[in-house]
Amino acid sequence: MPVVQPRGLFITVEGGEGVGKSTNIAYLRDYLESHGVDLTVTREPGGTRLGEQLRELLVAQRAEAMDPMAELLIIFAARAQHLSEVIEPALAAGRWVLCDRFTDATYAYQSGGRGLDAARVRRLEQLVQGDLRPDFTLLFDAPVELGMARARERGELDRFEREEVAFFERVRGTYLRLARESSGRFRLIDAGQPLEAVREQLHSVSRELLDCWGVRH
Amino acid sequence: MPVVQPRGLFITVEGGEGVGKSTNIAYLRDYLESHGVDLTVTREPGGTRLGEQLRELLVAQRAEAMDPMAELLIIFAARAQHLSEVIEPALAAGRWVLCDRFTDATYAYQSGGRGLDAARVRRLEQLVQGDLRPDFTLLFDAPVELGMARARERGELDRFEREEVAFFERVRGTYLRLARESSGRFRLIDAGQPLEAVREQLHSVSRELLDCWGVRH
Repeated sequence: MPVVQPRGLFITVEGGEGVGKSTNIAYLRDYLESHGVDLTVTREPGGTRLGEQLRELLVAQRAEAMDPMAELLIIFAARAQHLSEVIEPALAAGRWVLCDRFTDATYAYQSGGRGLDAARVRRLEQLVQGDLRPDFTLLFDAPVELGMARARERGELDRFEREEVAFFERVRGTYLRLARESSGRFRLIDAGQPLEAVREQLHSVSRELLDCWGVRH
Repeated sequence: MPVVQPRGLFITVEGGEGVGKSTNIAYLRDYLESHGVDLTVTREPGGTRLGEQLRELLVAQRAEAMDPMAELLIIFAARAQHLSEVIEPALAAGRWVLCDRFTDATYAYQSGGRGLDAARVRRLEQLVQGDLRPDFTLLFDAPVELGMARARERGELDRFEREEVAFFERVRGTYLRLARESSGRFRLIDAGQPLEAVREQLHSVSRELLDCWGVRH
């Protein structure tokens, strides 16, 4: 009799600019892989060749204004390709997927930040994802001024990073509201603390994830 | 008292490969402009800088398969930008818009041709366009083999033009069904006839359009 492969966990990592997502994703990846987790690490927008081409269009400085609805549709186009080419096949094969930003970011940036009606995001989420939602979401949260100072240190700012402080306050506020509304899947990490304290919080989430792997394998 | 500017007419031109759209659009443009119609001529996918960049992604030969939903979202992203940057401002200023392909093409190619659920196209049409629909649609119709032979004469085929004959039969069938369902706005032009006979049909539609301009101005 064939062994039924358990479907993989879909883990997303969210947060504003300069909250240390990249460093901490690298840490989490090392931790999980060193404990035997079969992991696919990817990012949005992007994660596929088409997705990266669409990401370039999104972040480029443009002479003309990008229509907010066009922006939203490009993001979901990249997501549809990402789901069918990378995420769905990995989960179906029992691999875990660790994704740097997903649809929560669309609510935070395009709806919270830009003021696009959240109902439009919800309709596209339903159209593109059906019932698929992340199983776990790590939200790295830090005061906006702190995150922006860190992002500035990294060098030149792209089209999103040039937004006003008020924009990023709305992004942060939306993320925190989503975390309250879906507290079952969100794990909030206070990224305003020193690196060592952040690592401690991340370690506790990592152990929780590893327990899931243990139960399933 | 300010003069209320009447909203412009939105005219679309549809049809499969090799039906002579480009030549006939040029003819229609000359005819209308020479009779004083204030006209914006544009095309989809494209019509804006962002739209042309998205069009390039759509027609390029790719090593990996493009997800049908991603394709559909890219088309509607280009359309959203086209509407807000070109079509809506022109119509609001009383100009007429003559557009080479619009949402009927999405029904014909992505739903009819590729088999994507038409309900998905309808949901995106509603989300992106609201109540905006073309006022007139000229459908150039010709037998598939004839159109493909003409397209082949033009040179190398793009990703769409490389599809099978059966694909283009479904495209044509969908166009003809749309024309029957919305007979009020569709004008069917038999493009399988010799050029002179096609011009005669086009001339009759042109006069009808010009009467509209006369009534409004």
